[in-house]
Amino acid sequence: MRLVVPLQGVVQGKGGLILGSIVPCALFYFLQFYLKRRRPPPPPSSNHTPPPPSPPSELPRTTSLARATSRSNLSSRGSIGQAHISSRASPLTKPDDSPYYIGLDRASEDAYDELTNPNGIIQLGISENRLSLDLIEHWLSRNLNESILGAGGGLSISGITTYQPFDGLKELKEAVAGFMSQVMGSKAPFDPSQLVLTSGATPAIEILCFCLADQGNAFLVPTPYYSGFDRDVRWRTGVELIPVHCRSSDDFSLNVASLDQAFNQARKRGQKVRGVLISNPSNPVGTLLNRETLDSLLDFAREKNIHIISDEIYAGSTYGSEAFVSFADILDSEDFDKDRVHVIYGLSKDLSLPGFRAGVIYSWNKNVLKASKKLTRFSSISVPTQRILISMLSDTVFTHEYIKTNRVRIRTMYDLFVTALKKLGIECTKSSGGLYCWANMSGLIHPYNEKGELELWEKLLNVAKINVTPGSACHCIEPGWFRCCFTSLTEKDIPLVVDRIRKVVETCKSPS
Amino acid sequence: MRLVVPLQGVVQGKGGLILGSIVPCALFYFLQFYLKRRRPPPPPSSNHTPPPPSPPSELPRTTSLARATSRSNLSSRGSIGQAHISSRASPLTKPDDSPYYIGLDRASEDAYDELTNPNGIIQLGISENRLSLDLIEHWLSRNLNESILGAGGGLSISGITTYQPFDGLKELKEAVAGFMSQVMGSKAPFDPSQLVLTSGATPAIEILCFCLADQGNAFLVPTPYYSGFDRDVRWRTGVELIPVHCRSSDDFSLNVASLDQAFNQARKRGQKVRGVLISNPSNPVGTLLNRETLDSLLDFAREKNIHIISDEIYAGSTYGSEAFVSFADILDSEDFDKDRVHVIYGLSKDLSLPGFRAGVIYSWNKNVLKASKKLTRFSSISVPTQRILISMLSDTVFTHEYIKTNRVRIRTMYDLFVTALKKLGIECTKSSGGLYCWANMSGLIHPYNEKGELELWEKLLNVAKINVTPGSACHCIEPGWFRCCFTSLTEKDIPLVVDRIRKVVETCKSPS
Repeated sequence: MRLVVPLQGVVQGKGGLILGSIVPCALFYFLQFYLKRRRPPPPPSSNHTPPPPSPPSELPRTTSLARATSRSNLSSRGSIGQAHISSRASPLTKPDDSPYYIGLDRASEDAYDELTNPNGIIQLGISENRLSLDLIEHWLSRNLNESILGAGGGLSISGITTYQPFDGLKELKEAVAGFMSQVMGSKAPFDPSQLVLTSGATPAIEILCFCLADQGNAFLVPTPYYSGFDRDVRWRTGVELIPVHCRSSDDFSLNVASLDQAFNQARKRGQKVRGVLISNPSNPVGTLLNRETLDSLLDFAREKNIHIISDEIYAGSTYGSEAFVSFADILDSEDFDKDRVHVIYGLSKDLSLPGFRAGVIYSWNKNVLKASKKLTRFSSISVPTQRILISMLSDTVFTHEYIKTNRVRIRTMYDLFVTALKKLGIECTKSSGGLYCWANMSGLIHPYNEKGELELWEKLLNVAKINVTPGSACHCIEPGWFRCCFTSLTEKDIPLVVDRIRKVVETCKSPS
Repeated sequence: MRLVVPLQGVVQGKGGLILGSIVPCALFYFLQFYLKRRRPPPPPSSNHTPPPPSPPSELPRTTSLARATSRSNLSSRGSIGQAHISSRASPLTKPDDSPYYIGLDRASEDAYDELTNPNGIIQLGISENRLSLDLIEHWLSRNLNESILGAGGGLSISGITTYQPFDGLKELKEAVAGFMSQVMGSKAPFDPSQLVLTSGATPAIEILCFCLADQGNAFLVPTPYYSGFDRDVRWRTGVELIPVHCRSSDDFSLNVASLDQAFNQARKRGQKVRGVLISNPSNPVGTLLNRETLDSLLDFAREKNIHIISDEIYAGSTYGSEAFVSFADILDSEDFDKDRVHVIYGLSKDLSLPGFRAGVIYSWNKNVLKASKKLTRFSSISVPTQRILISMLSDTVFTHEYIKTNRVRIRTMYDLFVTALKKLGIECTKSSGGLYCWANMSGLIHPYNEKGELELWEKLLNVAKINVTPGSACHCIEPGWFRCCFTSLTEKDIPLVVDRIRKVVETCKSPS
């Protein structure tokens, strides 16, 4: 018989083996190899971000330029093309698409002011606590000069102007560690040697994620979660966030079984999960994680050999009857597995100082500390500000009084605000920490989906002139929830806010 | 005849075509495909960085954890493994291998002090100018309080403590733009809307490189160059630096023909060059780029359709007879190609304020500005420091006097230091800007290579107790050159420095 092969015409004699089967295989292999080499490298993997709309085209290749080429000749030719930016920066040039950031911008461009802009937008979207600024003002007016220039004007100029360790002055680390022990009610003191200081909690989160996960790796994040995580974690590090949905029927509480399911699904997709990112107290819900939940999170992380990042930036802004439990407290009482837990903290919320840009990474993992310290060259706190903070945090009479008074004021405003919303038929979850209430307006949205939620958000922004954060911006799976930051208000603002919201509520309820 | 094929036993009849040639091809193809899928993603490409010594092994996969699993059961099992950090952070946990950073650390641990540590190490490695701190001290002692708290103590607390735009306050941008025009002697004023403020020039460079180049892309950098670029550009962005060597026979001047050659070589390797990164005045050589060179650089960048990053952070610390020319001046007089030029600036050098962490990106490229502004969330300047700087830079009587006096003092110290070295037989290049002299000690090294250079550096550090930066840390191709920062000295330190260096010089010269 005769074999029918592609190279039939030449397949004769002893060369048949090579020509008839190995050669086609080899040719096919080299074709694959050639095609693969010519293919551009894949863009960073991303489940959430769409690929940049128009990746820069291949730069035109021209002949090289001789050293002596005259400028006038070149100039007359004009430019051969427009300079391209990187494909990873390209999405950042687009307008914001998150209602969280759109609302912040709108409210800052047309900010409400009782006297100068009474029809402006009232800002309930930004995470600021203005309830106790009078205490900060009082402290600064008495102590600012001395905190920077030294007692009796004994200025050590080089201690302010020259290079200092990028990860923070030793004195500030000691003062911050003391403050953290105080606000977190920890039995064990925080250890200054485990602290890395950064210019805000935002770079603290980014640096931690860079250190714990490679590009394309992921963190599990219980929802609803802080909208800023999407920028902080994903923009530059290329790390992905996998939302793990919590539900109103559970009071949006964290559920280890759901984490486990999400972990397994990611594994099936071939995605490596590097950890769980939580906020405690929860932003936006305002609930606290109890010790049992923290224990089971730790068990889960150990079982999967992954990390936990616990954002505890509202630890000193709790006002309920439950006690806040930091991961630091749990780890202090157990002798293992400390190297997989990392706490984020900062002075923006509990001391009402976001303008000071002071953030904290607190970790038990020596390698994370080593790498993070080196990366603070990109995110260090200026020394004059460090000097002010050293004085302020070392004044423990002031900090005790501040924390105590601030908690009472948050509690009072929370009660006033939640009661006022209730009168409009809007219920909030029971919060006991943070600067927000988490309001259920699902009865006001039509249709009952994200579109309906965003339409209500737009009405609140444009008609009521109130900026709140829609739950979808926090990846909440149930439509109709809104985060309202009530600590940027004064008590006398509340009737106005309620009046404005009422107008929208009435429109939504009336058959139109 | 019969064909000899791998599947000979079954290759009979009409199925011969399929079984004898297409099937092996297909099998081989699917095998390739299968192997490719199983392969882990390639690590970020890097020509300079060796791959991390021990990438974390695949995490052990265990069965999933049921929600109700008892903690005691798990705890008794103990941890199943150590938590891994990312492979990209892993190199950052290793001790520094650059003599630049080793020297800085050694000198800071055992710093010379005339009274308290007279045998300590004299620091000529760090880029600090202490010559005019008295002027800063005087200004701060008179103005600090008012600059932060407002005139007459009229403190606007929310103007200090609350969130402000991450890319800098408008008033500070205006003040910095004015200061840049002043120190750079520009005919055209700098435009505040083209400024992005960052917490130091270090994040400014990183942010720019992220925006201009993707991972694995490269910048051409004339050598010798500032050692810190290797960290600022490469650590997190994954962008490569291609050293383009300049030589002593040319006074280490930039040579467009060499840039061109390096560009073509990179292209042949398949590496995409995205720009040229220069420092003007040069760090470490101290020379200025003249207008002709800037013109030809611009021609080169246009021809290749690439970017130029010009680090002009020493623009106000020039002291020679030549005038400094900023790229801003050239672009002002020409009407094209502005979008490929980006200037780095900061207040660490010209105002002697590295502790204030104030850096600048100045760009004509709208997309770069948009993306950079968003990325400043990770690297913003704290507001109290911004308030101090607004007052200081707006005090133009002070800034004029400061810049003038500071230039005279740098010039005086430069002359003293270079003359002193000359008496030891050590010649320096003719510098006219920056805080360094670039000293030729090639006659003192044996053997004449990098090893010899590092041996001399170690002798200077350990025997003379002087920390300088060896040329190899600046990628200088010729061994035996050293960067000495003389602005951290006082005049009376010079005899001591010379005495200490002399001891080493004598050892090197004597036949041993």
